[in-house]
Amino acid sequence: MLHQLSGSILNQFFGPSNLRKCTPEAYRKLREIVCKFEQAAILGNDIQLTQKEIKVNDVIMCLKMDEYNRGVKDPNQFVPGYHIFERLHDIEKSPLFQLLRRMPKGGALKAHDSSMCSTQFLIDLTYKKQLWACSIEDGCKIVQFRFSKDKPKIMQHKGGNWETMDEFRDRLGEENVRKYLKSLFSMYPLSNLKSNDLAWKHMMSIFNLINGIVLYYPIWGEYYYNALEEFSEDGVQYVEVRSLLKRLYCLDGKKLPVKETLEVYNNELERFKHDHPDFIDSKLIYAPHRQTTVQKMGEHVKLCTELNKEFPNLLIGFDLVGQEELGHPLSMFVKQLLKMPAHIQFYFHAGQTNWYGSPLDENLIDAILLGTKRIGHAYAITKHPLVMELAKKFGVAIEVCPVCNQVLQLGADYRNHPAASLIANDIPIVLSSGNPSFWRTKPLSHDFYMAFLGIAPRNADLKFLKRIAKNSIKHSALSDEEKANAMQKWKVKWEKWVDWTIENADEMLAEELNKQ
Amino acid sequence: MLHQLSGSILNQFFGPSNLRKCTPEAYRKLREIVCKFEQAAILGNDIQLTQKEIKVNDVIMCLKMDEYNRGVKDPNQFVPGYHIFERLHDIEKSPLFQLLRRMPKGGALKAHDSSMCSTQFLIDLTYKKQLWACSIEDGCKIVQFRFSKDKPKIMQHKGGNWETMDEFRDRLGEENVRKYLKSLFSMYPLSNLKSNDLAWKHMMSIFNLINGIVLYYPIWGEYYYNALEEFSEDGVQYVEVRSLLKRLYCLDGKKLPVKETLEVYNNELERFKHDHPDFIDSKLIYAPHRQTTVQKMGEHVKLCTELNKEFPNLLIGFDLVGQEELGHPLSMFVKQLLKMPAHIQFYFHAGQTNWYGSPLDENLIDAILLGTKRIGHAYAITKHPLVMELAKKFGVAIEVCPVCNQVLQLGADYRNHPAASLIANDIPIVLSSGNPSFWRTKPLSHDFYMAFLGIAPRNADLKFLKRIAKNSIKHSALSDEEKANAMQKWKVKWEKWVDWTIENADEMLAEELNKQ
Repeated sequence: MLHQLSGSILNQFFGPSNLRKCTPEAYRKLREIVCKFEQAAILGNDIQLTQKEIKVNDVIMCLKMDEYNRGVKDPNQFVPGYHIFERLHDIEKSPLFQLLRRMPKGGALKAHDSSMCSTQFLIDLTYKKQLWACSIEDGCKIVQFRFSKDKPKIMQHKGGNWETMDEFRDRLGEENVRKYLKSLFSMYPLSNLKSNDLAWKHMMSIFNLINGIVLYYPIWGEYYYNALEEFSEDGVQYVEVRSLLKRLYCLDGKKLPVKETLEVYNNELERFKHDHPDFIDSKLIYAPHRQTTVQKMGEHVKLCTELNKEFPNLLIGFDLVGQEELGHPLSMFVKQLLKMPAHIQFYFHAGQTNWYGSPLDENLIDAILLGTKRIGHAYAITKHPLVMELAKKFGVAIEVCPVCNQVLQLGADYRNHPAASLIANDIPIVLSSGNPSFWRTKPLSHDFYMAFLGIAPRNADLKFLKRIAKNSIKHSALSDEEKANAMQKWKVKWEKWVDWTIENADEMLAEELNKQ
Repeated sequence: MLHQLSGSILNQFFGPSNLRKCTPEAYRKLREIVCKFEQAAILGNDIQLTQKEIKVNDVIMCLKMDEYNRGVKDPNQFVPGYHIFERLHDIEKSPLFQLLRRMPKGGALKAHDSSMCSTQFLIDLTYKKQLWACSIEDGCKIVQFRFSKDKPKIMQHKGGNWETMDEFRDRLGEENVRKYLKSLFSMYPLSNLKSNDLAWKHMMSIFNLINGIVLYYPIWGEYYYNALEEFSEDGVQYVEVRSLLKRLYCLDGKKLPVKETLEVYNNELERFKHDHPDFIDSKLIYAPHRQTTVQKMGEHVKLCTELNKEFPNLLIGFDLVGQEELGHPLSMFVKQLLKMPAHIQFYFHAGQTNWYGSPLDENLIDAILLGTKRIGHAYAITKHPLVMELAKKFGVAIEVCPVCNQVLQLGADYRNHPAASLIANDIPIVLSSGNPSFWRTKPLSHDFYMAFLGIAPRNADLKFLKRIAKNSIKHSALSDEEKANAMQKWKVKWEKWVDWTIENADEMLAEELNKQ
């Protein structure tokens, strides 16, 4: 960056001893130029706002600055300084959050197949006929679910007792069970999460538990359709889903071939697009678990190649998921991964760790050298300036997941999130949520709120938000032609939101005023 | 950095689509080069180790990797993942810490005049004759100290009651008072520190309280001498002290002119150097409070200029202290600051905040444009890539204070400290403690331990530690000639430590083995 400045007239000032000889006037001018230079280099400053958008910007910045200034005055009131579990209800009351809720956000590029739907939707699913629950500890703790005609024979936990959900509810009372399930399906309370490791264990146990529900053939489609519905309601028009592509089971216990899992996605997606003409599309990234063998990795690559042949528009990429600390580094699988046909893109998770310099941390290097198209999390990337530079040069977008990083105990205060450095360096980023189901957040709005208010600089405004939304289409798996079409669909919604905001500005500002 | 790579043979691989066409062999080679390249760019990699130092490095890395690996296996055991208040005693038991304790660390470039000595020393001072305590809440809470012949007439708190410390101790029992004073003089327990703001308030209240003790003319010198003693015992041979240069008081309440404050420093320093020929030196940086007016700033600059004339080898620099959130931005005082004679260097605190983009955050820009020689904290610098680049270009060192940043609630987990990015980018840093008195840490060892084990990359080794130690002389206020002499004095100690470590290696390694 500096070399751009070097040739300029500024150069004469630089060097600490020269600077000490400045006049106050020269200093003011120099400072102004440096500040403008810094500002221009920040993510989003390439965006031009229309006249209408400038009006919207005034509203949004009024709401933001109000909340920000209240925080400076009393840090206790600044939501991004705290854990989201402690402040979830405060966020709901924020007029800024409500406006971001309505904002068309483009695509959600990082979502995991069975952690997309709201807790409420999961609870509703437990009312389905023929759902059984296996409980332990005197029938108080559910450890497994299963759809079955008769009492299931499979049992993961010794000494468990199977009964239908109807029986379970009759025994414990519907309201109690509702509260219990709410807690069971998400990671609350905060006191459960004593370390990164325990948070991961907790999350994996929820995945494991709900598998019994969502992997049931008729539910899998319903879950996906509902996920698209919830994302859509949150201002998302495009979704890329990381899926383990597990085999679905039938009422008689039979497991279907993996092709059926994709077939369900395909059909539900078509149905959803038919019902929602303003929705852009959804794609799948095959993402098996990283805790595997070299041989199995070879099989994953082969499977991915085959499935991509059958579903070329749906299954478009490959990734590995699971806690990096427990899995193997990408470098172990290079030989297998390089066999993947080049048109199937990589979207690797990497650097979701704070163990700087560990083999896991080095996944960032392998991700970029393997030609990844985006990097999931890349929480550790600011410790790898060369990877940052290459990401910028290659246009590799970072999928920033602020809430997820907090819940999985990588960071505490949003103001310290490494994405601030990415923003300052204009590294392409998109915002994602990861597993919103487990932290009771909206599909994307909470992450936008935390990033906008807590991570981005104070004066980051509508230009920043618009850049992030546009990035989600620019860095998606869509083809160039599809992107043009997607951008058009997003623009229609965006302009409606702009009009709505202008119309309702007074009301929102009054509401914010009431908060003071 | 990238442009250095661009011309090379590597260039043909770069670009994500090229990378996908790599053979596994080419990939391995490419990866190796990139890793080496990354490694070479990390702070400390310019250092060459001697044969003896290589042996020491084996020991130190064995101790470090043991502790690190135990942490990866069980994050609960990894001290830098937690608040130091919760793990202070664990640190004492770490063989790595004990070895770092003994290591000659060069200089401590950021220390504050009245927060340098151990709690024990402060407690000992309360046994001095003619010390009075003013207490409230039924005589249970001390709110003020004062040396006086008779009952002091000054009272900061309404309804307080003055009695001598002897009377106070008689009334409450010596052991109770000792425990009470231990808590009074430091910021424990952790539960007191609910926010950045409250932590600062707490810290300022301790400064305020002990002023009554340390500003007493005969104590001031004793405090400073003891501070040098404690720093010296912790492997520090050179100290730069930020001082508010408060006026000292006498037993009759009379306040001495500020010149006397410096005179005491001067005399005690000479006495200390005479008693400790291996000690290098100590310098003063005049650092008044940033919560002031433009007019007063002009007076501070004038006073600094005058005092520097009288004590040209002692008072060598200028800074502003206090919570940045509560003070005024540097930009407000530019006109006055530019009047400072250029030979009096600036050592500005800046960016000790997580309010990205706020006027306080912009202090980083002003510090660098005002030609500062070092920056205190610069916690927010990774959000300002241009400032980072200029710091590197100008050789402006960052005074990194890991423990202080945690205690003042800027960050939680040391592994997320922004200094990791500074290390990765080879920005010059020095390690400092700030106010070790208030967090019951050693003058420098705890900061070295946290930085080495928690912030630096896993493979950062003796080269890193040696670079940090050498940096503290290189970036000190010493003249070039003094630096050469200082380096020599440090080297003598360093070589002794190297020998000692080799001699005692087996014992240390056995102790570490016992911890598993």
